[in-house]
Amino acid sequence: MEANTAPALDPKAFRAALGSFATGVTVITARAADGSPVGLTANSFNSVSLDPPMVLWSLAKKSHSLAVFSNCSHWAVHVLAADQEDLSGRFARSGTDKFSGLEVANGIGDVPLLAGCAARFQCQSTFQHEGGDHLIFVGEVAAFDRTDRAPLVFHAGRYAMAAQRDPSLPPARSARVAGGLDEDLLGYLLGRAYFQFHQGVRDKARAAGLTDAQWIVAAALTARDGVHADDLSAALGYVLDEPLSPLLQCMQSDGWVHADPQGRWHLTPSGRDRSLHLLAAAKAHEGDLLSRWSYDEGALLKLQLQKFIAATNPGFPDLWHEA
Amino acid sequence: MEANTAPALDPKAFRAALGSFATGVTVITARAADGSPVGLTANSFNSVSLDPPMVLWSLAKKSHSLAVFSNCSHWAVHVLAADQEDLSGRFARSGTDKFSGLEVANGIGDVPLLAGCAARFQCQSTFQHEGGDHLIFVGEVAAFDRTDRAPLVFHAGRYAMAAQRDPSLPPARSARVAGGLDEDLLGYLLGRAYFQFHQGVRDKARAAGLTDAQWIVAAALTARDGVHADDLSAALGYVLDEPLSPLLQCMQSDGWVHADPQGRWHLTPSGRDRSLHLLAAAKAHEGDLLSRWSYDEGALLKLQLQKFIAATNPGFPDLWHEA
Repeated sequence: MEANTAPALDPKAFRAALGSFATGVTVITARAADGSPVGLTANSFNSVSLDPPMVLWSLAKKSHSLAVFSNCSHWAVHVLAADQEDLSGRFARSGTDKFSGLEVANGIGDVPLLAGCAARFQCQSTFQHEGGDHLIFVGEVAAFDRTDRAPLVFHAGRYAMAAQRDPSLPPARSARVAGGLDEDLLGYLLGRAYFQFHQGVRDKARAAGLTDAQWIVAAALTARDGVHADDLSAALGYVLDEPLSPLLQCMQSDGWVHADPQGRWHLTPSGRDRSLHLLAAAKAHEGDLLSRWSYDEGALLKLQLQKFIAATNPGFPDLWHEA
Repeated sequence: MEANTAPALDPKAFRAALGSFATGVTVITARAADGSPVGLTANSFNSVSLDPPMVLWSLAKKSHSLAVFSNCSHWAVHVLAADQEDLSGRFARSGTDKFSGLEVANGIGDVPLLAGCAARFQCQSTFQHEGGDHLIFVGEVAAFDRTDRAPLVFHAGRYAMAAQRDPSLPPARSARVAGGLDEDLLGYLLGRAYFQFHQGVRDKARAAGLTDAQWIVAAALTARDGVHADDLSAALGYVLDEPLSPLLQCMQSDGWVHADPQGRWHLTPSGRDRSLHLLAAAKAHEGDLLSRWSYDEGALLKLQLQKFIAATNPGFPDLWHEA
């Protein structure tokens, strides 16, 4: 690491280095002397004192809101939840109607309070300390509340979510044979997670008369109906471990699919109906599993899977794309 | 949300509410007058000013280190990387030899500098402000450096990693038929990620003469050799879409496996050798994919998969467990 030293200290590099420190995102509100609500997005919030309970944040001295916050008796800090990225953007922009359309309550000192946050701190403005081009506001917490909502995180100039480590997870185990299968292999983890999920769907597909491969073909045809076998084969070739043609023939005999005179494959009305029922069962299964876990953990898994799929896609033909 | 209001403000609940705000984790160091290095873990760090460049953090007035930090001319902030959880724990405990065994450099003002961090800020101690039971330290940044290491995050009393959102990801697409397959289904995402990964392994398994199902059996036998067909079937039943016995018979004919007189199935020496080669290829494939992505994104995906597998495991028999 090459150290940046003053006076050659590069402001852009300094900002980037500060961005290495992950933070939550807050919206801080107050009531102006004329009664209008004021609010801004800040990630400079932090705890200070437990007894008395105090928190701090800092505001640029050139901010339009400086006069309001310097003179008000109270302000409130809203720690944003993971699904409040829009609110962060709204209060980060300058503008007059930041509160329009929002559900706003009145807190201590008539401070505007926003809903749906991870936590809120209603504070009496206590100290204003010198901090270079910013003023440091320290407030004593007069009231607070919190929910279990997952937090919005900001890191390296981007929004993020917090993936909590789980100390109760057992350590990954290796095979007794060096180089054998171990639990930390990505291929093992992906396969285990997929088949563990799929097990709840497979029973219903089997009961409907479908093998795993046939179920994959039927589900794909609900996304895009009327596909030439070659296109279907190109889109599903990396999934199926068997040739597509005999599979389609077999599904045709069973009344799931049919080919039109142009050679495009379609679900039959009954095949489509049964496929949509199975998909609904898969969605219900997903809901059931995620309810045992948590919505936010599920959202994080999906986010990482989406990023993995995008980052490692070798260029498979797109199932949803027009042929 | 029921608001907690003073004077009934509950300290435990207040701490929990503060924990809703995610932060990075820092270790802050200084040199005592007697020359000994001093350091402590803090998540109260934050940026203050850009011009002049200033940062702050706060320290309990009852801290043993208060005298050192109150009197020193310089201190340094180390923003910890995701793999520095141990360092966080080490500097959070009271003790005399926090620096023992660590690679320590000397910074401005002889401040001890630690290695391997996401960012470091060497600061001249500038202001000490009142903050209830804490003192707020504001320092002017004299030098800093950073790396691209993923940050260690602290949230709700636990360590976490930051999963960055990716604004370049295309929005999930739905089928043209209501209720049809859409890209946001967990089952789709898991299957797509698994098969997209597996495609790079399947070619090699096929070249070795193995179907997907046979490859799964061979890989499982590298983790636990000498298994009765019933136990193997119980452990792999949720993965395989075909009966195990004919599959084992076929692999026996091909010289991959054999049964001992007690009816336990083993890899043959040649079968084991070929299986370990395929596993090595799968590991190399994982390394190749993750190098196109990033180590930290891969670690996050694995973490979420491990949590998903643990949270949704219906009680499958354990492949690594002694029979």
